[in-house]
Amino acid sequence: MFVILVYDVNQKRVGKVLKKCRQFLNWVQNSVFEGEISRSNYYRLKRELLALIHEEEDSVIFYTFRSLSYSKREIIGLEKGGETNFL
Amino acid sequence: MFVILVYDVNQKRVGKVLKKCRQFLNWVQNSVFEGEISRSNYYRLKRELLALIHEEEDSVIFYTFRSLSYSKREIIGLEKGGETNFL
Repeated sequence: MFVILVYDVNQKRVGKVLKKCRQFLNWVQNSVFEGEISRSNYYRLKRELLALIHEEEDSVIFYTFRSLSYSKREIIGLEKGGETNFL
Repeated sequence: MFVILVYDVNQKRVGKVLKKCRQFLNWVQNSVFEGEISRSNYYRLKRELLALIHEEEDSVIFYTFRSLSYSKREIIGLEKGGETNFL
């Protein structure tokens, strides 16, 4: 499956959350990651992020896709991230 | 079409970019918007954001989808945004 992950967490926890996301996905921009991930790793990532964040203050959104055949990514301005799997 | 927009712009321009995005899409989280948008409004939004941002420093990513039938959104932690059209 393909995942786009966006987080908005307290500054104190950004470092740990960033590191965790990097383990599984590609960094695209500021607080955005994306990439192909297995279902089991997806659940693992969610579980491990849940252990890091404070649920009453932080927020992590996962957009998951089975197919990307009808999707497109466009960037205006700077392309900050590195390698991507996006079609 | 459905759009997920994520921006990473200099603090000086955040207010204007936020306001512009709000005109066309629903706010979901920190620097993330999403929503149904017509093709003409999509081009208009891109054009107007291009006029606001500094391309050598700021970054705006548009993920566009013709169909959302195989997608899902999951949030862990706080749900910060308001209303959404996401399935």
